[in-house]
Amino acid sequence: MISRKEEEIMKKYSFKNDYSEGCHPNILEALIKTNLVQQNGYGYDDYSAEARALIKQKMNYPNADIHFVSGGTQANLLIISSVLRPHESVVSAETGHIFTNETGAIEATGHKVHGLVTEDGKLKPEHIQLVLDTHTNKPHQVKQKLVYISNSTEVGTIYTKKELQELSAFCKANDLYLFMDGARLGQALTSDINDLTLEDIAKLTDVFYLGGTKNGALLGEAIVITNDKLGEEFGFHIKQKGAMLAKGRLLGIQFLELMKNDLYFDLAKHSNVQAMKIKSAFQNKGFQFLSDTFTNQIFPILTNSQIEKLSENFDFYVWKKMDQENSAIRLITSWAISDEMIEDFVKEIQLL
Amino acid sequence: MISRKEEEIMKKYSFKNDYSEGCHPNILEALIKTNLVQQNGYGYDDYSAEARALIKQKMNYPNADIHFVSGGTQANLLIISSVLRPHESVVSAETGHIFTNETGAIEATGHKVHGLVTEDGKLKPEHIQLVLDTHTNKPHQVKQKLVYISNSTEVGTIYTKKELQELSAFCKANDLYLFMDGARLGQALTSDINDLTLEDIAKLTDVFYLGGTKNGALLGEAIVITNDKLGEEFGFHIKQKGAMLAKGRLLGIQFLELMKNDLYFDLAKHSNVQAMKIKSAFQNKGFQFLSDTFTNQIFPILTNSQIEKLSENFDFYVWKKMDQENSAIRLITSWAISDEMIEDFVKEIQLL
Amino acid sequence: MISRKEEEIMKKYSFKNDYSEGCHPNILEALIKTNLVQQNGYGYDDYSAEARALIKQKMNYPNADIHFVSGGTQANLLIISSVLRPHESVVSAETGHIFTNETGAIEATGHKVHGLVTEDGKLKPEHIQLVLDTHTNKPHQVKQKLVYISNSTEVGTIYTKKELQELSAFCKANDLYLFMDGARLGQALTSDINDLTLEDIAKLTDVFYLGGTKNGALLGEAIVITNDKLGEEFGFHIKQKGAMLAKGRLLGIQFLELMKNDLYFDLAKHSNVQAMKIKSAFQNKGFQFLSDTFTNQIFPILTNSQIEKLSENFDFYVWKKMDQENSAIRLITSWAISDEMIEDFVKEIQLL
Amino acid sequence: MISRKEEEIMKKYSFKNDYSEGCHPNILEALIKTNLVQQNGYGYDDYSAEARALIKQKMNYPNADIHFVSGGTQANLLIISSVLRPHESVVSAETGHIFTNETGAIEATGHKVHGLVTEDGKLKPEHIQLVLDTHTNKPHQVKQKLVYISNSTEVGTIYTKKELQELSAFCKANDLYLFMDGARLGQALTSDINDLTLEDIAKLTDVFYLGGTKNGALLGEAIVITNDKLGEEFGFHIKQKGAMLAKGRLLGIQFLELMKNDLYFDLAKHSNVQAMKIKSAFQNKGFQFLSDTFTNQIFPILTNSQIEKLSENFDFYVWKKMDQENSAIRLITSWAISDEMIEDFVKEIQLL
Repeated sequence: MISRKEEEIMKKYSFKNDYSEGCHPNILEALIKTNLVQQNGYGYDDYSAEARALIKQKMNYPNADIHFVSGGTQANLLIISSVLRPHESVVSAETGHIFTNETGAIEATGHKVHGLVTEDGKLKPEHIQLVLDTHTNKPHQVKQKLVYISNSTEVGTIYTKKELQELSAFCKANDLYLFMDGARLGQALTSDINDLTLEDIAKLTDVFYLGGTKNGALLGEAIVITNDKLGEEFGFHIKQKGAMLAKGRLLGIQFLELMKNDLYFDLAKHSNVQAMKIKSAFQNKGFQFLSDTFTNQIFPILTNSQIEKLSENFDFYVWKKMDQENSAIRLITSWAISDEMIEDFVKEIQLL
Repeated sequence: MISRKEEEIMKKYSFKNDYSEGCHPNILEALIKTNLVQQNGYGYDDYSAEARALIKQKMNYPNADIHFVSGGTQANLLIISSVLRPHESVVSAETGHIFTNETGAIEATGHKVHGLVTEDGKLKPEHIQLVLDTHTNKPHQVKQKLVYISNSTEVGTIYTKKELQELSAFCKANDLYLFMDGARLGQALTSDINDLTLEDIAKLTDVFYLGGTKNGALLGEAIVITNDKLGEEFGFHIKQKGAMLAKGRLLGIQFLELMKNDLYFDLAKHSNVQAMKIKSAFQNKGFQFLSDTFTNQIFPILTNSQIEKLSENFDFYVWKKMDQENSAIRLITSWAISDEMIEDFVKEIQLL
Repeated sequence: MISRKEEEIMKKYSFKNDYSEGCHPNILEALIKTNLVQQNGYGYDDYSAEARALIKQKMNYPNADIHFVSGGTQANLLIISSVLRPHESVVSAETGHIFTNETGAIEATGHKVHGLVTEDGKLKPEHIQLVLDTHTNKPHQVKQKLVYISNSTEVGTIYTKKELQELSAFCKANDLYLFMDGARLGQALTSDINDLTLEDIAKLTDVFYLGGTKNGALLGEAIVITNDKLGEEFGFHIKQKGAMLAKGRLLGIQFLELMKNDLYFDLAKHSNVQAMKIKSAFQNKGFQFLSDTFTNQIFPILTNSQIEKLSENFDFYVWKKMDQENSAIRLITSWAISDEMIEDFVKEIQLL
Repeated sequence: MISRKEEEIMKKYSFKNDYSEGCHPNILEALIKTNLVQQNGYGYDDYSAEARALIKQKMNYPNADIHFVSGGTQANLLIISSVLRPHESVVSAETGHIFTNETGAIEATGHKVHGLVTEDGKLKPEHIQLVLDTHTNKPHQVKQKLVYISNSTEVGTIYTKKELQELSAFCKANDLYLFMDGARLGQALTSDINDLTLEDIAKLTDVFYLGGTKNGALLGEAIVITNDKLGEEFGFHIKQKGAMLAKGRLLGIQFLELMKNDLYFDLAKHSNVQAMKIKSAFQNKGFQFLSDTFTNQIFPILTNSQIEKLSENFDFYVWKKMDQENSAIRLITSWAISDEMIEDFVKEIQLL
């Protein structure tokens, strides 16, 4: 999939990821302002407390259990390993981040991940039913207990409210927990075609997280546990997996800034809007796409020579070879991309 | 797949497995004869030593490292977890025992298992190449390091010498270890269409095992490590995983008896021959099969009413639903099945 | 502690262990009688069912959940890993089998074992309280959740009813599970100074096992789960850890024979009685002991030259160096030792 | 040990830790300056490269392998789990951070930690020899393979050059790796009584880390692998354990600032100097100490009423109860503490 040349340091403008820059200036200002105030460690600081309160308020779920950790793989392995018993497994789309892009992090905690083929990166009840149907030979097969979905997905698509309701109902009916990886949840919730709210997600899942790393923070994901059964003694797991920051304030301060005045959603919206400009430019020229996305990831299909041309001034991943002549590329826009840069890039597209 | 009613105790003749009876009488005699002789524990007894010597002689590989353990899942998890480093994975057919029938035993030791779709349960270099090609994003993806194959496979097929040579060469070229699960290796090596020898297998794989449980022993598999790098300190792993029997003599005595005068191969041959009689009976009546097998597992496709009819006096697994009207059943013949029983069953087939 | 020369095959009579012989003849007879009867696999056979019923009856605990596995380490790691959540730990005496003699089997499943110094291998509430008192810094320290004791202990001592009651009450009061390793439970319950019954143990512990390997079986331990919360889905764990025998009948048949007519207790009593004869012989000559034991393990302290003399015709472990001139040796008598052998040995003692 | 009231937010000046403030202002400035520069993720950014080069230069070890991770527990579990094979264990002082203060993080990766009693938190060859001597019963016991030491230790003491040389020689002679936890390595190297250099440590250990979290960074430890055998494929482990930051620049920028002009050592020295002022004040009043330390941790023994008095305006941990009347407290000074604050505190001491 991705072939990264490690030695290559970025010289061109990069559309490779939404974490190529530092963080939103408000965060830097807050770090400066609070710098010499003494605080308790391990997430027991004032800023983390305030950030938790704001998140709970925004999703209208006062009893949620909220923990800040440094990154997505960390959040995924923590949640899954704390929820499952040794013989239980997790169901994911084959495109799910935990299935192929985390170096076996989940299996390293002892659990099988079922990777299911989907059309668009989204799990539907019928996919999961198939796994359940082929795992009835107890106790010779693992027991499915948790469903992992990403929103927005790894291929840029998002769940509709109806889809999430159906999935949630299916999970409840089958005694499965539902976990949403929200590394790009901001982008999902601010997509033009989105009809889900944070409140819906809190109600319809058992646990999810709000990603900061890919939406303007230096690092950090906010894990939200809404199912009372799952939060028990979560702090022990955070510590055991090396995920507890001594200066937890660093995460608290960032989420406080992101939540204030909905900066989090503004940044995500910005990245979506910029991506849609690029999408339009490709559409206007008649290009096809690997998947029809409405968030900050787009996957236009180009000829090899077009890719070469575009690579002269811009950096991006060649995502999937379609045939000898054509490949899909992946373009990601970040919270930090300027209108000028988009205009420059659109001009290049128009010249293809 | 298998829907077993646990409470149902066998009243009919069972073709469900090749481990429904006790063990070959020679083993019982040897247990009686040696019963009060004191021996060292943990596999350091005389009988285990003799059994090891005989196995080495039969495969003409004096430097092999041989260890006896109680069962197949035990052998699989021991071998794989001792060979791999934490970030390394194992490649298996989707039908491989480790992929779906061991309750996540391999993942429980921390390693991902890739399950590949095959036509006939056999892995070919092109299957593995596909995994390698989609796992180049280091270090974000697991590193494939071991290839797991079964011979005979879980669907009754066997590897030809040419196939094993190609697989072995591919593994060496790609720095992968090759491990053969031989839970039914006797049946593979005594199949009418087999052209592999024990000596070939010792040379072409890095580690394999000779299954006793499914070929006339009370329990026991003989793990044979031929790659010097892999055997190091294997005893520690056996002990740590709870697989070291205090009375290791129980395993040594059994393999000694099975190896003497090639009893092991005679028993396997017997089970194959009996299965082929059943296969012929189905073929003569024009039945189709799920896969074309030449070992002691056969998978004829019957109508629902034929299955019901056959179930009156015989027990077997309904293996795979083909459509509303038809299913494949699985019939396994054991080392202990008599000619009379085969004749009875063939008569029933003829009446279908 | 033990320095075993692996290459040395026993030529002298061995007091090294109670698993140097095969099994009680009744077991061999039962294996012969049942040999060709077809049975379901994985412990769903008739014999296992009967054995379970007999055990439940003897301990007057009809709702117990009983599972047969092959050995002690297997039983220990299965029980502990199925009971604990990732951040929970187990408390053991420093002499406990799980602490130093199982190659880190428990840690390999992810859990810390606290090893406490005791006088006589027995845990008391005050020992455990000490661990609790020094592990209050949540969530930076593991949470103690299970107390592991052995009866008889690894140094040959046994728990009194009062001691077990106190321990049980302490565990309940502190939300700890109590688990008794009964690898030599027969010997404990038939010791001259014992006042515990199987029924007491079923009531006072949450889970325990009856050891077969060290009391006349070829292999096998009977795990008894009396706490309803702990048994849930135990079969999955057995399978996952490679501990599920295809021919579970082998374990069922043995425990059925051992339980019939209390053969189990007769064998254990025999080994105790023989040990006490040896103990008396040493006492009569004025020897001291490492610990005052009333089961089938005794630890007399001898001079180096006495050890050398005794080693000429008998085999045993030199257990602990006391000073330059003296060491304690460990002598274990098995279910199989004859009166003649004891007499021979006693004569040698008298000549020291 | 530590009894932390989680709900209590700091109102008094806190001597509880050296991570109660944010970070050195130079780091904030660098974050601002570099904020919008696009960089590769995962530690492949320019700043991380520069920081690695500076560290290598300072320790005169060009071939070292350097990786930045977020915290100490993360570093410890990563290093240990990547180095050890499943049956291998790690030797630590009983006071070692991995033994009691990381919620079983090491055991959670499958490895036993031996906790040895020491006088002053420092391991000596004789301590380790004792473990080796009692673990000779192969393969029934874990195999010791790595020695874990902290410098400065968890009780504030430091290793002399001679001590480290002896330990290093002992480890090499016994085929053990030597790993130094340097969460407070800056404080150790700038202690008045220190005679070790960074270059010595690079030569005498196989792997160590330079702690940033406790010495002026927001977060971050720099793992330095000097033994070629250990670094292989370390990136896979970092990713698998969730320790790979997408914005690795955050760690690179910080270590670059800390290494420039030896800021790292200046900050550590400052914290030591301030602690020594407090130590002198207690000494002048005739107080005793739990251990005689020359770094930024001091452990004076006070009466209960003196502790109460001091607690009115200052916050600290009561570390160890000595008797009914007296306890040792722990005071830690950070890189950020001002001369004024020290003077205020010294005045309070003088009034005790």
